[in-house]
Amino acid sequence: MGNIHGHTFRVATFGESHGPALGVIIDGCPPRVPLDSQFLQHELDRRRPGQSALTTQRKEGDIPEILSGVSAQGLTLGSPIAILIRNTDQRPQAYTEMKSAYRPSHADFTYDTKYGIRAVEGGGRSSARETAARVAAGAVAKTVLKHACGAQITAWVESVADIQMPALAKTPTQKQVDASPTRCPHPATAEKIEECIKAARQDGDSVGGVICCVISGLPAGLGSPVFDRFEADLAKAMLSLPATKGFEIGSGFAGTQLRGSEHNDLFIRKGGRIRTLTNRSGGTQGGITNGEDVVIRIAFKPTATVMKPQKTVSPDGKATSLSAKGRHDPCVLPRAVPIVEAMAALVAVDHWMRDRGQNSPFGRCGRKA
Amino acid sequence: MGNIHGHTFRVATFGESHGPALGVIIDGCPPRVPLDSQFLQHELDRRRPGQSALTTQRKEGDIPEILSGVSAQGLTLGSPIAILIRNTDQRPQAYTEMKSAYRPSHADFTYDTKYGIRAVEGGGRSSARETAARVAAGAVAKTVLKHACGAQITAWVESVADIQMPALAKTPTQKQVDASPTRCPHPATAEKIEECIKAARQDGDSVGGVICCVISGLPAGLGSPVFDRFEADLAKAMLSLPATKGFEIGSGFAGTQLRGSEHNDLFIRKGGRIRTLTNRSGGTQGGITNGEDVVIRIAFKPTATVMKPQKTVSPDGKATSLSAKGRHDPCVLPRAVPIVEAMAALVAVDHWMRDRGQNSPFGRCGRKA
Amino acid sequence: MGNIHGHTFRVATFGESHGPALGVIIDGCPPRVPLDSQFLQHELDRRRPGQSALTTQRKEGDIPEILSGVSAQGLTLGSPIAILIRNTDQRPQAYTEMKSAYRPSHADFTYDTKYGIRAVEGGGRSSARETAARVAAGAVAKTVLKHACGAQITAWVESVADIQMPALAKTPTQKQVDASPTRCPHPATAEKIEECIKAARQDGDSVGGVICCVISGLPAGLGSPVFDRFEADLAKAMLSLPATKGFEIGSGFAGTQLRGSEHNDLFIRKGGRIRTLTNRSGGTQGGITNGEDVVIRIAFKPTATVMKPQKTVSPDGKATSLSAKGRHDPCVLPRAVPIVEAMAALVAVDHWMRDRGQNSPFGRCGRKA
Amino acid sequence: MGNIHGHTFRVATFGESHGPALGVIIDGCPPRVPLDSQFLQHELDRRRPGQSALTTQRKEGDIPEILSGVSAQGLTLGSPIAILIRNTDQRPQAYTEMKSAYRPSHADFTYDTKYGIRAVEGGGRSSARETAARVAAGAVAKTVLKHACGAQITAWVESVADIQMPALAKTPTQKQVDASPTRCPHPATAEKIEECIKAARQDGDSVGGVICCVISGLPAGLGSPVFDRFEADLAKAMLSLPATKGFEIGSGFAGTQLRGSEHNDLFIRKGGRIRTLTNRSGGTQGGITNGEDVVIRIAFKPTATVMKPQKTVSPDGKATSLSAKGRHDPCVLPRAVPIVEAMAALVAVDHWMRDRGQNSPFGRCGRKA
Repeated sequence: MGNIHGHTFRVATFGESHGPALGVIIDGCPPRVPLDSQFLQHELDRRRPGQSALTTQRKEGDIPEILSGVSAQGLTLGSPIAILIRNTDQRPQAYTEMKSAYRPSHADFTYDTKYGIRAVEGGGRSSARETAARVAAGAVAKTVLKHACGAQITAWVESVADIQMPALAKTPTQKQVDASPTRCPHPATAEKIEECIKAARQDGDSVGGVICCVISGLPAGLGSPVFDRFEADLAKAMLSLPATKGFEIGSGFAGTQLRGSEHNDLFIRKGGRIRTLTNRSGGTQGGITNGEDVVIRIAFKPTATVMKPQKTVSPDGKATSLSAKGRHDPCVLPRAVPIVEAMAALVAVDHWMRDRGQNSPFGRCGRKA
Repeated sequence: MGNIHGHTFRVATFGESHGPALGVIIDGCPPRVPLDSQFLQHELDRRRPGQSALTTQRKEGDIPEILSGVSAQGLTLGSPIAILIRNTDQRPQAYTEMKSAYRPSHADFTYDTKYGIRAVEGGGRSSARETAARVAAGAVAKTVLKHACGAQITAWVESVADIQMPALAKTPTQKQVDASPTRCPHPATAEKIEECIKAARQDGDSVGGVICCVISGLPAGLGSPVFDRFEADLAKAMLSLPATKGFEIGSGFAGTQLRGSEHNDLFIRKGGRIRTLTNRSGGTQGGITNGEDVVIRIAFKPTATVMKPQKTVSPDGKATSLSAKGRHDPCVLPRAVPIVEAMAALVAVDHWMRDRGQNSPFGRCGRKA
Repeated sequence: MGNIHGHTFRVATFGESHGPALGVIIDGCPPRVPLDSQFLQHELDRRRPGQSALTTQRKEGDIPEILSGVSAQGLTLGSPIAILIRNTDQRPQAYTEMKSAYRPSHADFTYDTKYGIRAVEGGGRSSARETAARVAAGAVAKTVLKHACGAQITAWVESVADIQMPALAKTPTQKQVDASPTRCPHPATAEKIEECIKAARQDGDSVGGVICCVISGLPAGLGSPVFDRFEADLAKAMLSLPATKGFEIGSGFAGTQLRGSEHNDLFIRKGGRIRTLTNRSGGTQGGITNGEDVVIRIAFKPTATVMKPQKTVSPDGKATSLSAKGRHDPCVLPRAVPIVEAMAALVAVDHWMRDRGQNSPFGRCGRKA
Repeated sequence: MGNIHGHTFRVATFGESHGPALGVIIDGCPPRVPLDSQFLQHELDRRRPGQSALTTQRKEGDIPEILSGVSAQGLTLGSPIAILIRNTDQRPQAYTEMKSAYRPSHADFTYDTKYGIRAVEGGGRSSARETAARVAAGAVAKTVLKHACGAQITAWVESVADIQMPALAKTPTQKQVDASPTRCPHPATAEKIEECIKAARQDGDSVGGVICCVISGLPAGLGSPVFDRFEADLAKAMLSLPATKGFEIGSGFAGTQLRGSEHNDLFIRKGGRIRTLTNRSGGTQGGITNGEDVVIRIAFKPTATVMKPQKTVSPDGKATSLSAKGRHDPCVLPRAVPIVEAMAALVAVDHWMRDRGQNSPFGRCGRKA
């Protein structure tokens, strides 16, 4: 239990890292949305292992097969959309050391404790490989959002280790983000981050960092207080990702140091509608979008897998030592960018559907409303 | 929609700030748990307005009436527990200015946009007054947790504005936390925070800060990856609270600056069970509790209500100015401490029940399992 | 767990038969719906005990207090609506025999088994008294439906014991139904049913029967296959009522004896839209409403409480005998009519909201959709 | 939306009749349950088209591929189990007439109305072909039930058209049920039913009937009043099946003709536990299982597809005529038997898990409880 996301746009995922396949069922996608299989592949490619020298060298085509829910003409039917991704580069033998030693800061021990059984190879379900299914679902969610309200989602790497890019005047484009394998859109910072990640790899070590994500173009009015605030669902979605340790919206932790008179976003009238002069709120007030950009930040810890030997224990509690041997990312952030975008898209479209109804805006039933 | 929390231990709340009453229905409380009405009152008193010079001077007894679900002997029946709290100090006339001007960084504008109607007085449902119902539910959740597994929850104020208390060697007791009206357990820091809050009030301004919360005594094994990770549900619960802007678990944002080899929590055997040497993970790995303390931090922005005049617009978009006149907290943190604990308790007991079943550990049905 | 109904229009109820109060929270009612408190009282009066010589003589005013979610002008706010009904005629002493003997075909034994504890008085939560909260919620649901799409719900008693009324040419009005205390709209049959119920009472016995319910005016397109078919949710709602043993839609069990060519509803064009010539389907096809009347039937068993002595066992399994002493309905059907209508309304409005969105059709957000 | 079943043992299905594949994700299966792939195939074979002269002649191997959630040793992992079934005998060209005419008593019109688009071939998602995924999930549910509490589920055909088998002294075995292609365990009646179905096919017509289903071996205590009564969830599950028109538990509609003193099930002590002398309740009281057999009946209408020409309209409302040309069952009941069992298993295991917890009885976490 725990593998279904969303209330109205519901997503169920499956798949172990070294099992036959991963995939997703999307239940609640509105009908008559044109799905572009090239876009789906494009999104998966952005998450794909082996895409640059900075990532794991596992080779996966990550080629999605759509099994249901889409007409011959490429329109959604309103029925569940199933997407299948076969694993092709499993190497279970590379993980035999995991049987006899719990990897520090991994989920081996907690999975054993919870389930009394564990897919040892590559972490099984606890591997970040499962996020491929999220990205596939996110591609559908992004498409629905685009057609529903024109909203767009852009994430990028803002810092790695202690290297922090300067604040940008405006949200970068995806092209700017993807220009560097680091997915940091500030070239000078990107260069430093690239060196930093390579140095960590060379040391058999790993680094973490912060991703910023902006949702722009959402209408005001999304979010369901008191428990299902828009930012509450974003926080849950982001903390459901492997390796995440923190979440901020708008001014975040830094904002706690301001006084109210400095922090408040004053209302103004601009372009025929009510806007705020600043956006320390980060796009929501009282848990409901206010029409400004939704701006969030997510902290990713350094990858738990390091090549250096580490002390640990075996499942029966005996002291031992472990050096990782599989293929791993020395820094998850470059590949985490499309995953963060996918989760943001899932949350946004779920709230859009909650408010507008399961058939909006494309269903005939919805149209008459 | 959005006023029901939890999957197995489910809580539905209701109530506007200046309506007749607030309250909660708890659906899924296990049977035969002894509820202590004094403890319930104690928890509400810790959140109550007017409890010190640092808080709003609204006077509410916050006296709970249990309407169902408990036997004459004070044992839960397994049926829904309803708790009612009457509002007694409503002053709707104090809020007439809210009709004609949107308060900056409040939810007036977004509620109007979403619902096309608004309970103007005191913010209605968007007021932090609704959290009284959460604290009542949290008192029940704490009681269940105590009987189920002995787990305990303690929160405290760690920083206000730029005043930060030093790290503690061990989790403070509730008595230590409640010794100061600031709910900061470090006396020297508490003194500074008290001055800081009083200064903000004098200036007609407000301040924010950070609360730390520790759940200790939970068994390893709670949490349902991939979406319903234990920390994901905590993040959602905390970001569902008014005025929250950020969430961290374990090493949080600061942890992104460490290398993996520094950050990893090595496993050791201690006291007959598998433990970790450090706790940068913050008590969960792979979304599942590992038996260590769950340690989280929550950022609260400075209260949006300030007495200084602020520029804003009226509902029809005309520029205007606003000075708050109602009774407000210049800093929400001291009263937020029991609210954070309540939400942590709701998440923890919900996951406990998911794993052990709705009648555990007290129901006859559960006992035979 | 199990006391929350609905997916988008969600209803949580509470209350024991002889506790202080019953009530409901409605989460997801759209904003700006005019609620009529007289209509709410009217619906509760139709379910109220003591309304005629045919029902239990327990005296309850069943006066609802609206605690939240409604503006001073009587418009819903989009926030949770809480309705409280105080019990006033509790007589716990009348039920002492229930402690020492399990009443046959009641829930005493199963509640004891499941929960290990039981509110003995009047059956506690298992008493049909809990349906007062459903009727209160149903009154809100009926109001939403009326404003949303003009749909109307009418139920009536079709048979009691072996007395069956003839088929009607068209759906009776509520006035016709309520004209007789039996709630059978066919006067000659009503008279026989009245005698039948009185005879059962005189014998210290009880009788059952069948209620028919029609929802007219629903748009085509409601229902969410494959699991949440419109009729599936109706079946669940009706079987969640005390004393129900069966559910039919359209041709029901009798329809199994026809051939397909006789049973099929042929499509025709009539009044500018596509209709069916007959309605053996009962208003849904493939789990989705087709715009025809939704026609269902519900079987209620004879009341389990009889005044005649019955053999049974004590909680520790010893053979004993029991004669009921409390106040009971010799036939639940007349009072079950408004309860069936309430459940039908809850299902219909829930599906309407699922399709059109939580703020439809009244919220500003919904309006723009 | 609407393609996910269950609260704790959750099942999401997908697939159109003539799309590439059908399948299911099971989220919440407890860990360490031994899954038998032969049993899975056996269950699918019982539902498979083309299994006898009485069914559709569509040829599908219905060979399941398990994609996740099961270890190399055949034990469940506690992670989602995905099962894929490829369609192999699609003949979309056989359904061209469905484009231009709405089939009477099928879902063509309602799907068009709801979604504004339709998978024309074979009814797409509204085809009973989707039930293959339910049977796959049901096989897993039956396995869990067997290991959890030894419960068993048996369904059979009790009547077809006006041919009704006599009451049996005890529940038949699956072998007795499967002995006849009709799945009626009373040989003399089975013979008549076989003739009846063949006669209907010869006439280009169809017949309906009633299936009885018994769940034996369930512990007392399952079910969550007031809304999620055990029989309420059964009723929903059964009415979610294509072609169902009615549901009964225990005495059902016939029981409405008895008096309470005749209908009540007297408690006795037998075999060391509390039992009932009769079982008119059908295995539940107050919505909770009482340890007796759960006995339900489901009405299936005659198949809507008939070969005889029928009057209908085109999507634009013009009168036309239609004769079916695809491959169809003249009577769905023989193949519906395993489908009814699957749904009963899904409901029973879902309630078992709700009560005992998601990891019971096999998880290490659950074991310690």
